[in-house]
Amino acid sequence: MHEQPSPERSPSQCAVNALREALGADVVSLPHEFTGRKNSDSSRMPCEEPLALIRPRNTEHVATALRICHEHRQPVVTQGGLTGLAGGATFLGAEVALSLELMNGIESIDSVSASMTVLSGTPLQIVQEAADAAGFMFPLDLGARGSCTIGGNLATNAGGNRVIKYGMMRDQVLDIEAVLADGSIVGGLRKMIKNNTGYDLRNLLIGSEGTLAVITRAVLRLRPKPRAVSTAWCGLPNYDAVTTLLRRAQESLPAGVSAFEVMWPGYYDFVLSRLPELRAPLEGKHAFYVLLESSGADPARQADAFEDFLSGMLEEGLISDAALASSESDAAAFWAIRDAPGEYQRLIPGRVSFDVSFSIADVGVAAHRCEQQLREHWPNATILIYGHLGDGNLHIVVQEPDWPQDTAPKVQAVVYGVTGEMGGSVSAEHGIGTKKLKVLALSRTPAELAAMRAIKAALDPLNILNPGKLLPH
Amino acid sequence: MHEQPSPERSPSQCAVNALREALGADVVSLPHEFTGRKNSDSSRMPCEEPLALIRPRNTEHVATALRICHEHRQPVVTQGGLTGLAGGATFLGAEVALSLELMNGIESIDSVSASMTVLSGTPLQIVQEAADAAGFMFPLDLGARGSCTIGGNLATNAGGNRVIKYGMMRDQVLDIEAVLADGSIVGGLRKMIKNNTGYDLRNLLIGSEGTLAVITRAVLRLRPKPRAVSTAWCGLPNYDAVTTLLRRAQESLPAGVSAFEVMWPGYYDFVLSRLPELRAPLEGKHAFYVLLESSGADPARQADAFEDFLSGMLEEGLISDAALASSESDAAAFWAIRDAPGEYQRLIPGRVSFDVSFSIADVGVAAHRCEQQLREHWPNATILIYGHLGDGNLHIVVQEPDWPQDTAPKVQAVVYGVTGEMGGSVSAEHGIGTKKLKVLALSRTPAELAAMRAIKAALDPLNILNPGKLLPH
Repeated sequence: MHEQPSPERSPSQCAVNALREALGADVVSLPHEFTGRKNSDSSRMPCEEPLALIRPRNTEHVATALRICHEHRQPVVTQGGLTGLAGGATFLGAEVALSLELMNGIESIDSVSASMTVLSGTPLQIVQEAADAAGFMFPLDLGARGSCTIGGNLATNAGGNRVIKYGMMRDQVLDIEAVLADGSIVGGLRKMIKNNTGYDLRNLLIGSEGTLAVITRAVLRLRPKPRAVSTAWCGLPNYDAVTTLLRRAQESLPAGVSAFEVMWPGYYDFVLSRLPELRAPLEGKHAFYVLLESSGADPARQADAFEDFLSGMLEEGLISDAALASSESDAAAFWAIRDAPGEYQRLIPGRVSFDVSFSIADVGVAAHRCEQQLREHWPNATILIYGHLGDGNLHIVVQEPDWPQDTAPKVQAVVYGVTGEMGGSVSAEHGIGTKKLKVLALSRTPAELAAMRAIKAALDPLNILNPGKLLPH
Repeated sequence: MHEQPSPERSPSQCAVNALREALGADVVSLPHEFTGRKNSDSSRMPCEEPLALIRPRNTEHVATALRICHEHRQPVVTQGGLTGLAGGATFLGAEVALSLELMNGIESIDSVSASMTVLSGTPLQIVQEAADAAGFMFPLDLGARGSCTIGGNLATNAGGNRVIKYGMMRDQVLDIEAVLADGSIVGGLRKMIKNNTGYDLRNLLIGSEGTLAVITRAVLRLRPKPRAVSTAWCGLPNYDAVTTLLRRAQESLPAGVSAFEVMWPGYYDFVLSRLPELRAPLEGKHAFYVLLESSGADPARQADAFEDFLSGMLEEGLISDAALASSESDAAAFWAIRDAPGEYQRLIPGRVSFDVSFSIADVGVAAHRCEQQLREHWPNATILIYGHLGDGNLHIVVQEPDWPQDTAPKVQAVVYGVTGEMGGSVSAEHGIGTKKLKVLALSRTPAELAAMRAIKAALDPLNILNPGKLLPH
């Protein structure tokens, strides 16, 4: 005879009990065992508490956990380093947490194939350092490098500072291993660059924000370590000069362009006036500022070529003025101006921030339209505009002290309105999560959303993987 | 009262009638109207005749055609330039043909965003020439450039000669427009490099060999045109030297490596002895031959750096001997040795050919094992081995005059056996089509094939798009 379930044994508790029984108390913790643990990501979106915390030690643990959750229709939120900005790893209620924190480490480095096999809970910085120690470079880089994990970078297809030369996270991966909703394991951790055998599951799972699979391991692609970095700070007279400089640099610099960061004067003036430790690289005012970097293999020849290029651009008038970094500390001082957003929390609390993208040809007009329309509503607001122009990626930050509480949605309506009108993307690199669910349809058509839903239903028919994220109901 | 269908009005004929009625006789032709037309691809796989030939003039025609085929459960085979080698565009019986030959042309070139919007029936060579005329380079390149189309390149994720520097077809695309099985249109032809808004439909459809969608237009990414090409022919003492040379070249050459083609001595001796127009670039015999190319922006500095690099490698003994191309005709003479497979039809009829890949570290062992095992069975066979080593891509060609007819499957068992054992890919760049259906499972696990089938069922529930291709039953 079967026992009647007691009233407190909800379906979720059954799942938790089954997980704990199968994986043990050292892998599955109950809420009273992880009180005080940070469970939300860095998005400042609302976040409930998980019903249990699963910390698998290997892929088989993940497969067992998902198989049990699938049987119990138990929703799961996968956690990487909790540095996401879109609310993709928040708890909406009644989920269990699956943290990859114990699946942390580099399994092997293959110098001949220029690849590294890692567990997905490994922090990005550990991967960068190991690549460096092995004589290579792992080019993905972003501010949260110390805490964010390779699994999170994969789940969100992270971007960052070096996309113009090396691409986004999907371009840094040869293969992955992942567990699907039903507990089946896909991905062979193969090291081939070319592999045309069926559908591109790897790229489908990368960037799916935990809604299609839990990525457990990856074979990362390593790149030759640059031996020389040339850096300049340029003042330019107009936006046409900015895009022309980008193209000329890409055509002319022997080592190509490894960074092309554009700052509008409002940003430049703001950060220099508020952060006294920053030094102005150039005298006078310019319509645009560009941080140009080229990284390559040949220190002596590269420095000559970089200097020749800048001289030519000054002569042609594409650049009004330029400062060439003659030391690493010069270059660091230039980058400090671009990296000032690290101080935003202190400088402009209550700001509304955007991570949008456009075709490179449209970025200038888009920025101008956003600023103009924002000024119509909020003439005195602080409006900071800057971005990775080589990727069409624009960051816009808007703030006014003592704004009424309901201002943020109005500011968003302006910027996302321009983004939608101009065929831009409402999320260049941060993803959709919960934060951008309402504006996704500005960048995706109903047919595309329907296709995405069909794929979700095919791979996660019971909707247990990160439900309520990435795709609006 | 409804008319009874007459006996000759099969379901397929209903579909053909509906297509002709909706799209007109200039778009939908009947078999007697296209007699003599070539319908098979270049795979030499068995091929039936299509029931009708649809030649849409725009995306709406494609959408209408697929909507009608969907309603009638009418299978469709999409045709590009019919140069595929895997039997992906063959007719298995009772399909209609959808040829994109009239959707041919470049719609726009955006020099600022470095992109080109094209109809997918446009031949690759037309795109290359238009990019060149606009001051850019479209880097995808393969032997069939004059006939293959951008749509076919996308459907198969084509590879070719420049993958080591520029990637495969998926790396040359910013966005696509495609029609799904039910006639819905996806893809916004957006020009952004960064766009993290939901699942990566673009990469899912690219390489799906006509089984998930018909790709109608694409925004292609253009690259800076190289101003200088440095080329050398090298003889090397052993396989370790080959992989070390690759790594050193990637680390040291200011413009990187744009080709690294490796030829085993069996290949080299064969093509030089059979093609009297070829000249040996070096005296003496070597264990391996490498064609090394570096393409960049700075003619004078690049030539110096390339020569310095080769001198250093000769001094270290990584290269036994090298010939530097001092003119375009020298470089062309080196490439002629690598391009000799264009003469195979005449030189080695009845050959069995392979397009496999391995991790770069495994290529040497894989080639050795294949050759050894093939020799055990066929001691006197011609065995030619060469490939794009920088991509891990190995081409193997095997032939013996007067082989019994059933030899090909035995040869395939040997090479695909080694490929499966060593975790390689049974199709590096040609795709699966019908030709490699039986060996797909050597490179994909049952869970992966199940996930692919779920995706196919989600996006093409009635299995009308290129049924019987890419995925085994």
